[in-house]
Amino acid sequence: MTEAEWIVALRNLPLHPAARGLRDDAALIDAGELVVSTDTLVEGVHFLPADPPEDVAWKLVATNLSDLAAKGAAIEGVLLNYPLRDDGWDRAFLAGFEGALVELGARLIGGDTVSLPACAPRVLTLTAFGSDAVAPPRTGARAGDVLWVTGAIGDAGAGLALARQGADEPADLLNAYRRPWPRLAEGRALAPLAHAAMDVSDGLLIDAARMAAASGLAAHIDLAAVPLSPAYRATRGASRAARLAAATAGDDYQLLAALPAGIDSPVAATRIGMLVEGSGLALFDIDEAVPLPPRIGFEHGAS
Amino acid sequence: MTEAEWIVALRNLPLHPAARGLRDDAALIDAGELVVSTDTLVEGVHFLPADPPEDVAWKLVATNLSDLAAKGAAIEGVLLNYPLRDDGWDRAFLAGFEGALVELGARLIGGDTVSLPACAPRVLTLTAFGSDAVAPPRTGARAGDVLWVTGAIGDAGAGLALARQGADEPADLLNAYRRPWPRLAEGRALAPLAHAAMDVSDGLLIDAARMAAASGLAAHIDLAAVPLSPAYRATRGASRAARLAAATAGDDYQLLAALPAGIDSPVAATRIGMLVEGSGLALFDIDEAVPLPPRIGFEHGAS
Repeated sequence: MTEAEWIVALRNLPLHPAARGLRDDAALIDAGELVVSTDTLVEGVHFLPADPPEDVAWKLVATNLSDLAAKGAAIEGVLLNYPLRDDGWDRAFLAGFEGALVELGARLIGGDTVSLPACAPRVLTLTAFGSDAVAPPRTGARAGDVLWVTGAIGDAGAGLALARQGADEPADLLNAYRRPWPRLAEGRALAPLAHAAMDVSDGLLIDAARMAAASGLAAHIDLAAVPLSPAYRATRGASRAARLAAATAGDDYQLLAALPAGIDSPVAATRIGMLVEGSGLALFDIDEAVPLPPRIGFEHGAS
Repeated sequence: MTEAEWIVALRNLPLHPAARGLRDDAALIDAGELVVSTDTLVEGVHFLPADPPEDVAWKLVATNLSDLAAKGAAIEGVLLNYPLRDDGWDRAFLAGFEGALVELGARLIGGDTVSLPACAPRVLTLTAFGSDAVAPPRTGARAGDVLWVTGAIGDAGAGLALARQGADEPADLLNAYRRPWPRLAEGRALAPLAHAAMDVSDGLLIDAARMAAASGLAAHIDLAAVPLSPAYRATRGASRAARLAAATAGDDYQLLAALPAGIDSPVAATRIGMLVEGSGLALFDIDEAVPLPPRIGFEHGAS
């Protein structure tokens, strides 16, 4: 596909009015206050050359929208910076991208299309815009706040391990890894009540520790409360080791919110701990203190 | 430099309040209506591995701001999606990036930092936000409008040719190629008067033809009126061939505006033609019709 053909194809995607039909150099977004999130995925680092391009497209869109979900934002649209490299992959990516836009209710605003040498790893960038955000920061948690998490934790990590083994079931776990669902509706409901909120992308423990650190507090997490899915329990069990594995795996894209004590979550979510005066992270198994594992999640840069 | 060190260094750059100190997953921009432009540069395609990293950084910032200049926007800030690869290059890029932000009056809003395998070509993305834009579209020109262009045309193309020969002067031409200056002040002044405006990035002729096509009109350009700098004239002369070379070279980053007939440009600019009923591009040398050259500029994708 040439760059001109690619842009013609993009014009058939759901377009945001700001895109001006993808016929201009700049997009004009009229949405009052905007929340913006951007992510870059590198082939061989964030996804594998053999991964289905449709899934890569889904993940690129879904993980960005997950950041907006944590801000309680309504989705405005996305910019796509795409390197064309080979026709089959590009077309499959495009199909997956369209599917993600349609299913997740996002529209294309613009972007840039470049060509990449045949041997170069793909570097994909998506920038997502949300409006009408409540935008609880990471830094706003207060001592005594209760930590809530949506959905189940650990499914994507278990799915990744299965994918690496070439397994094709349980589908629920593989799907959690390949097609994470950004918790947009949950974010809209939680954000107005939350002192702090973020999405869980690098592991529940490390992300809870980051929220606590950003807020100048300590996080206490009850491993016994970490929500595990039926598929996870069936595959990995619910031992302390299985719970630790779930809470230190990444790619959950659930929401973690600090709500004032005494307030119930307005959406399906689980209390997994609280924030207290002090610093650092402390783990418990109901009442028993549990030593921290050597690795509590994925360390990498995001700004 | 590790990703953590890179982010610490980024925090020392001029930060936009929306950046929240680069300590969050999303930025929150409160600017009413925003203009957004994004560009991706690929090593080996848009710049050479031997190019000074400081100049690559400048160009990444300047070319994006040029798109905003054409919309008459005030600069809000930028997102940087950066692949770390080797320490010396990364640090030099950072120094150039800081210089560009400071000199051009932009601030960092956020971005994403990834790691790249040692052998992979760099893929750099910048997304720029402007506010308070008048945003004349490409499509708004009317029959009878006069085409104006700021500055001189062809210097960057001549500079590129010199750089390829390893020449180190004339500095004015090399500098026009390596350090294009986005016409932000000119854009602020022109945009409120212009029916259509865009920056000249792919060649004066092709960009004028694009504006005409987008507006459903024909462009008539007078080659004799194409503004040439003293350095260009001294190096290339001002023959018809030299003027054609200037008008079909890229990377000028001057502004092209369609102003109603009878209105003078409020900034230093040159009348180079007009828009008339019809379609296509017609070239003149004062009154003599000039056949179109086989190539009128650079064709590539941008959306």
